Amino acid sequence: MLPLPVLEKVQKELLCYPGEKCSVLEMSHRAPAFMEIISKAEADLRTLLAVPDSYAVLFLQGGASMQFSMIPMNLMPRGGTAAYADTGVFAKKAAEEASRWGDAVIVASSADKSYSYIPSITQQSIPKDAAYLHICGNNTIFGTQFNTLPAVDLPLVVDLSSSLMGQLYNVEDCGLIYAGTQKNMGIAGLTIVIIRRDLLKELPEEIPSMLNYKLLAEHGSMYNTPPCFSIYLSGLVFEYTLAQGGVAEMERRNKEKAALLYDVLDASKFYTHKVRAQDRSIMNVTFFLPDEAFTAAFLKGAQQKGLSGLKGHRDAGGIRASLYNAMTYKGVSALADYMKAFETENR
Amino acid sequence: MLPLPVLEKVQKELLCYPGEKCSVLEMSHRAPAFMEIISKAEADLRTLLAVPDSYAVLFLQGGASMQFSMIPMNLMPRGGTAAYADTGVFAKKAAEEASRWGDAVIVASSADKSYSYIPSITQQSIPKDAAYLHICGNNTIFGTQFNTLPAVDLPLVVDLSSSLMGQLYNVEDCGLIYAGTQKNMGIAGLTIVIIRRDLLKELPEEIPSMLNYKLLAEHGSMYNTPPCFSIYLSGLVFEYTLAQGGVAEMERRNKEKAALLYDVLDASKFYTHKVRAQDRSIMNVTFFLPDEAFTAAFLKGAQQKGLSGLKGHRDAGGIRASLYNAMTYKGVSALADYMKAFETENR
Repeated sequence: MLPLPVLEKVQKELLCYPGEKCSVLEMSHRAPAFMEIISKAEADLRTLLAVPDSYAVLFLQGGASMQFSMIPMNLMPRGGTAAYADTGVFAKKAAEEASRWGDAVIVASSADKSYSYIPSITQQSIPKDAAYLHICGNNTIFGTQFNTLPAVDLPLVVDLSSSLMGQLYNVEDCGLIYAGTQKNMGIAGLTIVIIRRDLLKELPEEIPSMLNYKLLAEHGSMYNTPPCFSIYLSGLVFEYTLAQGGVAEMERRNKEKAALLYDVLDASKFYTHKVRAQDRSIMNVTFFLPDEAFTAAFLKGAQQKGLSGLKGHRDAGGIRASLYNAMTYKGVSALADYMKAFETENR
Repeated sequence: MLPLPVLEKVQKELLCYPGEKCSVLEMSHRAPAFMEIISKAEADLRTLLAVPDSYAVLFLQGGASMQFSMIPMNLMPRGGTAAYADTGVFAKKAAEEASRWGDAVIVASSADKSYSYIPSITQQSIPKDAAYLHICGNNTIFGTQFNTLPAVDLPLVVDLSSSLMGQLYNVEDCGLIYAGTQKNMGIAGLTIVIIRRDLLKELPEEIPSMLNYKLLAEHGSMYNTPPCFSIYLSGLVFEYTLAQGGVAEMERRNKEKAALLYDVLDASKFYTHKVRAQDRSIMNVTFFLPDEAFTAAFLKGAQQKGLSGLKGHRDAGGIRASLYNAMTYKGVSALADYMKAFETENR
């Protein structure tokens, strides 16, 4: 979902960008008007996330999956070691991709309990020669999240694809943050990387230019033509988010929305919620019905009430409600009411 | 430039995609409506370019620059050999990127005459162990193009970023064709790769999944979230192009537009056109004025007449007129008239 005022603005200026003779879809990435769009998007992002000058902001393509490879290629030598926490499907994929390049050591895992909790990560568990520790901040499929980032003595690399801009993080706690923009920040086709400048290094010649953070940073994300429209759209979302009160306000709203559902789950004798209390995600709330027939009936009834996108991921089953920024309190409230009514009818 | 009817359709359905309850900007890439968008885009592209079933069509991210690396990584072993024709800035960049992975042998070059012609490429000049021959079909900066593709006994790989969909090519003459969509097929953020299926191979483990053609083809370009909006937009351009008469009609129009300018240049005693006659591009027409002062005056006067984007690339200087599909006959005709008037006034 995107905020309606953002969609309306895109629609309004689609044929002709204000002050220009063409659509934003036709603008050259070297045109002054686009340079202003990308500069403002970066400035607003820096304000929203309090990104200090000691970090570079990159607007890239390829999604988080491309980062799964770029991170090891840029942050560790070929055949080197990095530490990974295995907290779900994407966290595991990140480690698998990294192991094409070096030794991705799993230093903590919650696979033993179907990824229903966030394992603790201690400095002692991390190999001394590890170049970084990678975690996935919010695990969309299982509905868990790191509610505090591990305090470790090496660069922390955090996949925040599903929670950046939806809750507060301290950028300075991390060496590198990355996120596809399609959850809270725009549309698919743009990936944001925020990297501490001292981690930008010369790379071995075999690494493609397009995967080289240092080169991309030196070119201000314009080593080649960037995904202009996706950047424009994220810029509008940033502007809107600032006007709404920034990330602190988004977090407040998201916590409020999540509480609506967790309150129903806590009071329920019908639904099962498997996530450990302190590891609950405020972005994705997962729960289960007593059996598959109930699950199907629940989804069907929800659809009839206009509540869609609730089917759990195939790797987890059950129900998943995503509460990204653009999801309204009203919408979540309707879901909570439906959950209560369904329980009353079916318990 | 994009066709106005395409822009108008995007605008019209921006808030709510026909038959759906959300914007195309909000649609999941797994939603049936999006699956229909991407399937239709591929089907229309196959019709437009007469792509046989023995070729896979991929919708990727990263631009042509990412392909500069993916091509060698997918088509030759590490440290292997490939043949490259050096016909301009991007052709050279492609070879430079490939040489990170193996031996990119320049088998022909027109650097000796400022890239003003297309060098001939013979089978004899190509190393026997070369995995493929790479050429850049149309050289935007210098205004040259391969008006016939080299007939060689190894897979031909062609960068058609600036001419695919603007003129006819026989896909079956090539092993792999690639093109960013922002010239004739849509907006930045999407790259189309058309590859003969027998060239899809298992790759060494060190190559990132996101750079693996075989894996991407197996997932129907959905190994991860694709750039949905860019695909939707290219789909609209394909539909429009088909309705206009397809690529043969586009080529006819582009040749007609190009002839307007080449006729002025051929008759001129004022402008210099450096490209060898048989290598003239119908996409980008380049020419020079007697000196820098004339060039500046020409550009200034053009701007006043609403003729923009004419400044030559910094590597070439002079003037460059781009005649991509969405550029109208009327617009090019206005430029031809302006050129004649400017010559009469200043000769």
